[in-house]
Amino acid sequence: MSKTVTILGAGVMGSAMVLPFADRGMTVRLVGTHLDRAIIDSVAATGLHPKLNVTLPKGITAFHHEDFGKALGTDTDFILLGVASAGVEWAIDKLAAVLKKPVPVIMITKGMSPEPAGLGAFPDVVQAALEKKLGFKVPVAAIGGPCIAGELAVRRQTGTVIVSRDAALAQSFARDFETDYYHPRTSTDMMGVEVCAAFKNFFAIAVGWAHGRLENLPPSENKAKNNNAAAILFDQAVRELMELTRALGGTAESVWGMPGTGDLYVTCQAGRNSRLGNNLGRGLTYAEVKAGPMKDDTIEGAELGRAVAASLRAMMKAGLLVKERLPLTRALLDCLTENTPLDPPWTAFHTG
Amino acid sequence: MSKTVTILGAGVMGSAMVLPFADRGMTVRLVGTHLDRAIIDSVAATGLHPKLNVTLPKGITAFHHEDFGKALGTDTDFILLGVASAGVEWAIDKLAAVLKKPVPVIMITKGMSPEPAGLGAFPDVVQAALEKKLGFKVPVAAIGGPCIAGELAVRRQTGTVIVSRDAALAQSFARDFETDYYHPRTSTDMMGVEVCAAFKNFFAIAVGWAHGRLENLPPSENKAKNNNAAAILFDQAVRELMELTRALGGTAESVWGMPGTGDLYVTCQAGRNSRLGNNLGRGLTYAEVKAGPMKDDTIEGAELGRAVAASLRAMMKAGLLVKERLPLTRALLDCLTENTPLDPPWTAFHTG
Repeated sequence: MSKTVTILGAGVMGSAMVLPFADRGMTVRLVGTHLDRAIIDSVAATGLHPKLNVTLPKGITAFHHEDFGKALGTDTDFILLGVASAGVEWAIDKLAAVLKKPVPVIMITKGMSPEPAGLGAFPDVVQAALEKKLGFKVPVAAIGGPCIAGELAVRRQTGTVIVSRDAALAQSFARDFETDYYHPRTSTDMMGVEVCAAFKNFFAIAVGWAHGRLENLPPSENKAKNNNAAAILFDQAVRELMELTRALGGTAESVWGMPGTGDLYVTCQAGRNSRLGNNLGRGLTYAEVKAGPMKDDTIEGAELGRAVAASLRAMMKAGLLVKERLPLTRALLDCLTENTPLDPPWTAFHTG
Repeated sequence: MSKTVTILGAGVMGSAMVLPFADRGMTVRLVGTHLDRAIIDSVAATGLHPKLNVTLPKGITAFHHEDFGKALGTDTDFILLGVASAGVEWAIDKLAAVLKKPVPVIMITKGMSPEPAGLGAFPDVVQAALEKKLGFKVPVAAIGGPCIAGELAVRRQTGTVIVSRDAALAQSFARDFETDYYHPRTSTDMMGVEVCAAFKNFFAIAVGWAHGRLENLPPSENKAKNNNAAAILFDQAVRELMELTRALGGTAESVWGMPGTGDLYVTCQAGRNSRLGNNLGRGLTYAEVKAGPMKDDTIEGAELGRAVAASLRAMMKAGLLVKERLPLTRALLDCLTENTPLDPPWTAFHTG
């Protein structure tokens, strides 16, 4: 019997997941947050998702968040949590208000929760908060890996990683989601997948620096680009992802696999994190970029860096992270929180 | 005292290395092969390297290969071997004819030497062949990592890996080559660095497939690209590089570090291997590409695949490689040697 899914959060990624769900014959209920009102009205009227620029498959039911309980009903088999990182607290309250039984939750929210001397993975944070509020444990999984929503929304080949501390739960979701274009694989390395999912955005800023910097270099006889520099930064990003992941309890395979290098690769091809990097490469400070060319953009990698800066610095101070091995992380944190120009410390990369 | 280097092979990469050498005050002698006659004449006359489109620093002396012994003299401190993979045998004979003492050699030639049931690293092959011919052991190192010659030739930030089984030799070269734009690090993982240096070209063909394939897909409402597919292929490339490297005796760190993911990243941004992949994605066979749009191009990744196909298949047959873990390698080998269309086996990637 095909399943029923209720999606909370109708942004581009939550809504793109409608495609594999509908193609697998699921009953799909899409619930917008208070930010998604126009999206829900449009989907309800014509099926068109105005941010994806895609008409969603017929048969989707769209709801405003006030009707989340109604959407959930008693027959929802699982919930896809599609809110942005800033909406996680709100979503926990929303879930706690309506859940009467442990309906499994799968998250696509990327980010990490700052702790005094560490970082928490969102799925763990959500699970613990729900258990505290509800008195029972809700099964939780998450999706990582390289997935541009607009491509999934038109059924382009896409590979992801479904992670849960419960291997059977991850495998069950993977079986339910697989289509001829959507290919999830599974992992139990919660910290590894979540560190990569969050920090690939942060490090993509640095790789983007190289391409912006090119515009400020004197023109060369041979029209050379700046890909060698981008590759140094890409390599250092992978190296520091490895440091962070290991220190936080994740495994190396997540870093060199799809959640790490695969997702960093795609994140460096385009998007807001890269564009912030381009602007920093042109010589602007973070404040100048946010006051000017990107004043209306939420830049996930920058939001993450600002949210976790104090925790990471505390971990370095306590020796939980070796600061000599994180020169790019430190340069990015200084850029994002103290507005210093981003100036890659090339020689620290390979002597540290 | 500053050193004297003789470069054998005046192609773009051998010649680009002139920049850090000259900037470190070395005496540089550039020796062309029989293919480089026009380059050497131009460098001798005006300093202009016609393939790099860059005027080399003053003070370089240019020689035709007939004068290799004269160029080497008795004062050359080390030799940079800059021939293409097809020229390695020729270079060994050339070196054997003139070397009177163990002058250290550093190679930039990428490729692997096919053996009945394995693959040899070129630096090992060169060292063994020279010892056999000369009766003494010549110190050998090699350079891997992401380096586009045209960017190095105009002093763009560049990071590389100098590898030798002799750690002190690698460190000595790294100290001699470091400038404020050229940043070598060192490794003793000869097989890991050489497998990555060679096979990143081979796998970049597959990543390029995704972008060519896009042109054959029906246009989408939202102008979606095909980066998710490229990321699956990038991830699988890293995964199979890891399999090959481990089976051939290299270490994981070379694969997830600069020689592997760093170099694969830059190789996927542009170049002939990507262009072959683009054409395969459009639906052409390898033979059609070689007869048509790329008939005059040497495509390193394809040359490698054709050279090592029999060895890799023998290793799979003998159980030295697990063929279920190499679905992309097998698809590429079939495409390059049996002219089958390249059709990525998506589901084999994550069940293998």
